[in-house]
Amino acid sequence: MAVDTVEFAGTGEKRELVGGSATFASLSAGLYTDVRMVGVVGRDFPTATLDALRARGVDLAGVQVVDGETFRWHGRYAADLSSRESLDTRLNVFEHFKPTLPQSYRDSRIVLLGNIHPTLQGEVLDQAASPALVAADTMNFWIHGTPNELRAVLRRVNLLIINEEEARDLTGHRTIARVGRDLQKLGPQRVVVKQGEYGAWLFDGDEIFHAPAYPVEQVIDPTGAGDTFAGAMLGYLDAEGTLSPGAFRRAVVHGSAVASLCVEHYGTEGVLGAARDRIDARVRAFARLVHAEHG
Amino acid sequence: MAVDTVEFAGTGEKRELVGGSATFASLSAGLYTDVRMVGVVGRDFPTATLDALRARGVDLAGVQVVDGETFRWHGRYAADLSSRESLDTRLNVFEHFKPTLPQSYRDSRIVLLGNIHPTLQGEVLDQAASPALVAADTMNFWIHGTPNELRAVLRRVNLLIINEEEARDLTGHRTIARVGRDLQKLGPQRVVVKQGEYGAWLFDGDEIFHAPAYPVEQVIDPTGAGDTFAGAMLGYLDAEGTLSPGAFRRAVVHGSAVASLCVEHYGTEGVLGAARDRIDARVRAFARLVHAEHG
Repeated sequence: MAVDTVEFAGTGEKRELVGGSATFASLSAGLYTDVRMVGVVGRDFPTATLDALRARGVDLAGVQVVDGETFRWHGRYAADLSSRESLDTRLNVFEHFKPTLPQSYRDSRIVLLGNIHPTLQGEVLDQAASPALVAADTMNFWIHGTPNELRAVLRRVNLLIINEEEARDLTGHRTIARVGRDLQKLGPQRVVVKQGEYGAWLFDGDEIFHAPAYPVEQVIDPTGAGDTFAGAMLGYLDAEGTLSPGAFRRAVVHGSAVASLCVEHYGTEGVLGAARDRIDARVRAFARLVHAEHG
Repeated sequence: MAVDTVEFAGTGEKRELVGGSATFASLSAGLYTDVRMVGVVGRDFPTATLDALRARGVDLAGVQVVDGETFRWHGRYAADLSSRESLDTRLNVFEHFKPTLPQSYRDSRIVLLGNIHPTLQGEVLDQAASPALVAADTMNFWIHGTPNELRAVLRRVNLLIINEEEARDLTGHRTIARVGRDLQKLGPQRVVVKQGEYGAWLFDGDEIFHAPAYPVEQVIDPTGAGDTFAGAMLGYLDAEGTLSPGAFRRAVVHGSAVASLCVEHYGTEGVLGAARDRIDARVRAFARLVHAEHG
């Protein structure tokens, strides 16, 4: 959970944008199902966002509110929004965060391990009784900094959701076919490789699925799109109730749909404004987008 | 039609690779239908390639064989094959080339205008009696060097097949949705934007279609993949016989399938080795790749 300052070439600097993986993923999953959130914020974190999470059915029992400032990130996007640089990162209350599952969370059926130290990811998993699905994200910092710890936790993960660049970094391969298969060899039988505006691939056993990114007219702010994708994907899976191959494919499409609503606004505004009828319209549009059989 | 020298980071320099847009596109279209080729070569152009074209049913009446050397390009790919630089370009016999349609070509139903000076593209079109479909390619050199001539010929084109980078350059937009619509405003009611390893988008009136690139294990040489795509697309359309929206979508999938066979080998080797059963297997794989409705 974060409070960001983000510089955009066209529209200037936006301050006090609420962000953070857990925030985006919970707001997104909350569109589909009950969510149990784990995180930490300082006293500066906007009450309005906590209220919005609660209003979406997100349980905040696992969110620690402590003295000090929330994690703060200051970044700048390239003019075409295809890359960004970090100007300043202040861990603040996140520095000594130990994610702890409240007793009421321990029977969770689906667990999403956010992008934190892989040892902490493992400790979260130790606290979950017997989840049916363990999903995880990671990043270059852990791939290079804590490779052994990362490999240990990946062996306990069923679904890895990862950016293409990081996936290439982790496997040393370039083509999506090799990248996907190599990631599966690290443990997860299912792998989603996110390619941003170029969509996402799902590797599920021997099967491969691709969903394009929904072709939005204008991207305003890509921050949080990947977390929004992951949240919608898992929220959809929980709501559908089954973990069949088809459910995972449809979950990827829902992830793409909600992520496309996210990037059309600054910060969490897009995912806050997402409604099921607009999501469903984009999901239907996906079916037309890739349909080549008839006509 | 070209003879290339290409440097690859992993495997070193390949000399005397046969290339050129017309070569790739004709070999590819020839997998589907009768092709009438227009181009120019010098005495150095390999007879074996001309024989291979003939064997694939490509009519060479429009290919001029003249004294001098064939167009020669020398380039170098980046290690990950995602970009390349030109080290040397020698126009040779191409410098004063005036594409001329033999009388026997003038009733051609489908015309592909290769990536040459837009005024020459227009002159080719003047020689065609009444084609049902005029497709064209272009590149940054003409976008910046001859913008008015390019705009004039685009108004006579039904199907523009263009790389994403060039499409962005031509429209000044970034998102695929705006790029596609803006290209349609320049004249062509149908536009294909090729994104290399990220697939291709078809804009057809108000409808949008996306096909991923087939996930090949290893890319050996991306040279000619775009021309192979265009050739297979138009060859398929001619063979199918109708120009319905569904036929265009299926044509994009065939373009992707043959392009994926092209990049797995050096030069024209992949498209020369392409056989209908392998193409059809990849086309069937595409249907599974994007199928999210059931299961």
